[in-house]
Amino acid sequence: MEDKSDIGLIGLAIMGANLALNMERNGYQVSVYNHTPERTRKFMEKEGRNKNFVDTYTPQQFVDSLERPRKIFLMIKAGEPVDLMIDILYPLLDYGDLIVDGGNSYYKDTKRRCDFLKNKGRLFIGCGVSGGAEGALWGPSMMPGGMIEGWPLVKNIFQKISAKAPDGSPCCQWIGPDGAGHFVKMVHNGIEYGDMQLIAESYFLLKKLFGYNNSQMSRIFKEWNEGKLSSYLIEITSSILEFKELNNEYLIDSILDTAGQKGTGRWSVESAMEMGVPLSVIATAQFERDLSAHKDERVDLSYTYPRQIEAIKGNEAHVNDLMNALYASKLISYAQGFSLLRKASQDNNWNLDYGAIASIWRAGCIIRSVFLDRIKDAYHYNPELKNLLEDLFFINEIKASMASWKNIVATAIKHEMPVSAHSSALNYFYGITSESLPTNLIQAQRDYFGSHMFERTDSPRGQFFHVDWNTTKQ
Amino acid sequence: MEDKSDIGLIGLAIMGANLALNMERNGYQVSVYNHTPERTRKFMEKEGRNKNFVDTYTPQQFVDSLERPRKIFLMIKAGEPVDLMIDILYPLLDYGDLIVDGGNSYYKDTKRRCDFLKNKGRLFIGCGVSGGAEGALWGPSMMPGGMIEGWPLVKNIFQKISAKAPDGSPCCQWIGPDGAGHFVKMVHNGIEYGDMQLIAESYFLLKKLFGYNNSQMSRIFKEWNEGKLSSYLIEITSSILEFKELNNEYLIDSILDTAGQKGTGRWSVESAMEMGVPLSVIATAQFERDLSAHKDERVDLSYTYPRQIEAIKGNEAHVNDLMNALYASKLISYAQGFSLLRKASQDNNWNLDYGAIASIWRAGCIIRSVFLDRIKDAYHYNPELKNLLEDLFFINEIKASMASWKNIVATAIKHEMPVSAHSSALNYFYGITSESLPTNLIQAQRDYFGSHMFERTDSPRGQFFHVDWNTTKQ
Repeated sequence: MEDKSDIGLIGLAIMGANLALNMERNGYQVSVYNHTPERTRKFMEKEGRNKNFVDTYTPQQFVDSLERPRKIFLMIKAGEPVDLMIDILYPLLDYGDLIVDGGNSYYKDTKRRCDFLKNKGRLFIGCGVSGGAEGALWGPSMMPGGMIEGWPLVKNIFQKISAKAPDGSPCCQWIGPDGAGHFVKMVHNGIEYGDMQLIAESYFLLKKLFGYNNSQMSRIFKEWNEGKLSSYLIEITSSILEFKELNNEYLIDSILDTAGQKGTGRWSVESAMEMGVPLSVIATAQFERDLSAHKDERVDLSYTYPRQIEAIKGNEAHVNDLMNALYASKLISYAQGFSLLRKASQDNNWNLDYGAIASIWRAGCIIRSVFLDRIKDAYHYNPELKNLLEDLFFINEIKASMASWKNIVATAIKHEMPVSAHSSALNYFYGITSESLPTNLIQAQRDYFGSHMFERTDSPRGQFFHVDWNTTKQ
Repeated sequence: MEDKSDIGLIGLAIMGANLALNMERNGYQVSVYNHTPERTRKFMEKEGRNKNFVDTYTPQQFVDSLERPRKIFLMIKAGEPVDLMIDILYPLLDYGDLIVDGGNSYYKDTKRRCDFLKNKGRLFIGCGVSGGAEGALWGPSMMPGGMIEGWPLVKNIFQKISAKAPDGSPCCQWIGPDGAGHFVKMVHNGIEYGDMQLIAESYFLLKKLFGYNNSQMSRIFKEWNEGKLSSYLIEITSSILEFKELNNEYLIDSILDTAGQKGTGRWSVESAMEMGVPLSVIATAQFERDLSAHKDERVDLSYTYPRQIEAIKGNEAHVNDLMNALYASKLISYAQGFSLLRKASQDNNWNLDYGAIASIWRAGCIIRSVFLDRIKDAYHYNPELKNLLEDLFFINEIKASMASWKNIVATAIKHEMPVSAHSSALNYFYGITSESLPTNLIQAQRDYFGSHMFERTDSPRGQFFHVDWNTTKQ
């Protein structure tokens, strides 16, 4: 009879299969199960061949093959399938066995599942996993949260299979109770949307406004990747721009400019609205994808409103301005994302460690960058930062970028180039650094038409006033 | 024994009480009920004194007092209270009796309630009611949707109590099945958020960038109210700006600049994200309210990033530019709102009549304006408009406003004035009229890191490609 496995993994689509391979490569015996047995057989014949896997074909067989306390990693579609699988598994498990959900589950579902399994005497962890298929195989960034009693059971395995930051530390740390891990992963994905949109707008400015060709742009992104913008997304942008097809044409110019948005990106905006945190850059990135998908409408309207972009011959100063603008806008997007984490942490008593979160995003995941080291440092110096814009390093960066940032956005606007995310970031900066805003008028309007009352600058907060606006004087 | 009542109303808070008074004034006998009997007694002693109301103190007494088929108007808090009240009422009712929910219910709840009551042999209508307390009393804009069998029962009453447009037509028309009425009301509220934010930004530019005082600004808004911007919100803005307190100081300058957002505004953004419709102006308006609420953070950061707005001495040309910019941005916000209605109508088979919707917003509600007549006309000429930007009248307006619009946004950006909603509107315009967008890069990135595939410009839509980006050539 064979030994029991160290861990079991359910769901052998690309992410699950790669995670299983990653675990096995790191010295663990892994039981695998998939709801269609053909997939399991294929896995054992191909990727899993001659490796330390135990293939199982029923949930009971799967559970029986695991060392106790059992550790089960689910890598299945988020939503109902997770509940169905939990319903199948928990009666087969014993007190203290652990289920880990590695999908992109909604954090409120994770909280609900924690409560449910706690009642049944089982352990549950919701673990964000980032890095795509390559990350899963060679080291993802992992964000586990839920019942902390489960953490010692998987800590060694998770930290071993996760990515390692440049300083060698594992990109996997305990995040917090109930839905904290999945919440942090959700915000990560939102930030990824924001980064991609900001880079896309910058590419468009280089191309259409400053007139650079693909090869020049590839070089510019390569240079940016050696400076303060150094990051995975900038690096692959450079590679993408120089990629040629067999006919010697640049592939980028033949890719259709439409994209969709879904799941975690949208949830992060919804959560922000629910918690009253402005997450405007990420929201803009979502809506820009939606806008891109209205291709036919755009083509029709481009005939109705024809325009010729008045290009400017780009020079080093323009490129430098754009680099600064991209950096500043990116900083705003992260400041907004971390403000959301902070509010969620307060509302849910998660006690999140923002520096640790920045730290585990430094490798393995899509948004990995040098920049995250600066965020880690900022929270190291002051764990109570209300906003990243309060950090001394970032204050200096913003001040140094200010002229470039304004210049790029204003120039783009004048030249009829869409820069939604950059504009959104700059406007947020103007707003969040404004002692006064015109919201007094909004409050007056609300009191005028709906008797909603207002507070006064010359009275304590929390004291509300209403006037009869239809008299000339009060 | 007294006569049976024409209609019954439950919920005597300000909106409900005023609607009951409106019905009674229009010749109907109205039974009233409130879950706290004191409120009913007070209503009968004060507002309802010597009027044709029947006060009732139990649901059974209330139901028994109504003419059959019974018509019951709920004006209670949206959410669970509506379900609780329905659970109490439907067993007391007969086949074919009608319940109308006049609160700001979520449209999916309204659909669910339609299905539930249909099963029970009762009729149900979800009716958006706009116009605040004054509107409820003197004529609101009403958006009924749900089970059309119920419409003939209340059509006369509703059209009688509703506001009348300048051409005399009632601001109440049947909207469509299930949640259609509440969905349209939700979008109305979103548009209201957008209008208010755009006006607030314009006020701020007049004040801080162009240096006008309150009295001058009041006059400017008064002039705008006589032109293409003529609307209730512009009108009350003018009144608000000239309102002085007893000490002869302008009240507007003592109102605290913080606001919240909730309910219908947020739902409209969530629905837009769910349906893939860019609703960026309204989303921006939401987030600007959230940002305003971070007052302490703003004050702190205003010291960290001090700035002196370099004011420009405002002249007629600036004011004219701003008026054009506000008009164009407003048009975009409505174009986005109607695009959302269109998508919802397609997805839910509601067969919405956009012209009729614009028409019933022309009076009684907060967003009433001359502008809505133009929208009504646009859909009259072409009910199949994909986007309001396709309408000939609006094409001309946008083209005529273009130079002003760009100029205002670019100038504000340069002078470090926040113009989030205006920027968002202008960027949407640039995007939706762009044949090409930089989303090809986003699709390339997604394929690079996640093998998500892309479509090609030189292949039919729906055909997806993936390349191995790590080779130099494919």
